[in-house]
Amino acid sequence: MALPFRFTRKLVEVNGKVREYHVVEHGGAVAVVPIQDGRITLVRQTRPAVNEELLEIPAGCLEQGEEPLACAKRELAEETGWRANTWHELGWIYQAPGYSSEVLYLYIATDLSMGEQDLDDSEDIEVVHLPVEEALAMARRCELRDAKTVAALFHLQNWLETHRRARESS
Amino acid sequence: MALPFRFTRKLVEVNGKVREYHVVEHGGAVAVVPIQDGRITLVRQTRPAVNEELLEIPAGCLEQGEEPLACAKRELAEETGWRANTWHELGWIYQAPGYSSEVLYLYIATDLSMGEQDLDDSEDIEVVHLPVEEALAMARRCELRDAKTVAALFHLQNWLETHRRARESS
Repeated sequence: MALPFRFTRKLVEVNGKVREYHVVEHGGAVAVVPIQDGRITLVRQTRPAVNEELLEIPAGCLEQGEEPLACAKRELAEETGWRANTWHELGWIYQAPGYSSEVLYLYIATDLSMGEQDLDDSEDIEVVHLPVEEALAMARRCELRDAKTVAALFHLQNWLETHRRARESS
Repeated sequence: MALPFRFTRKLVEVNGKVREYHVVEHGGAVAVVPIQDGRITLVRQTRPAVNEELLEIPAGCLEQGEEPLACAKRELAEETGWRANTWHELGWIYQAPGYSSEVLYLYIATDLSMGEQDLDDSEDIEVVHLPVEEALAMARRCELRDAKTVAALFHLQNWLETHRRARESS
């Protein structure tokens, strides 16, 4: 399997001086907040980089030439079994711009129906369904430690608030 | 200057199979949300990894043996000139646990007074003061693209809400 990133160095001029920077060149990734009946679906998996099991939103790397939305649909299905009828594009952010070029496309997926989970053999993923309020409270207590998950929950919280206001005013 | 991270490989067993992972071994970092008179202080700087100027909260890497809070005070002063009399520890998260061991300690800094900015010559930083609501709106539109900044604003938004409720009920 080709790695979705490589370690490299680049020369960049800052303040008139050329400097060498160590950089992760990354092909980009997606992360999805799946919401159904007031519950969010998270995945628990071992992260070798931090020697720990983490609870995160479903996410994965773009394959060569793959469109972000197609990747989001593929990763959501593979990791959780969910298929979503409605996709809300939140935009994109940089995961760790201090040393990585990784672009991360964020989505909220709704109108879900359950199909087959389809993990490759390097993945050992447990699917966890939680009430949205519980996930938000866990993030507030830093019990959800993955930065992209917390960033996505910022968007989710504001998205839910916007929808609540829209319902109240209609 | 010693790099705060290095690229390495590690062997980890997943599903009974030993696999090789490419990992950024990182010494840890801090990020600070400075708030004064309803305004947040951000820093604009060029990020060579993404070839772009980004607007982010002040942040920086732990020096060898440095305590996170001491690092937060140092980085806030160096990058913005602010000294804070009150520090709120939000906890810590992982910046990019898919491939980096980086731990990121998050703080809200209040009761600020202005001193000297003190950048080293590899830094070219512009200090930007924005109304909190404007920064939150920019994050909602993905105009703030740095994941740690968005994650910190999740905490800020909830922290402000908790304080608002505490004031209302007192």
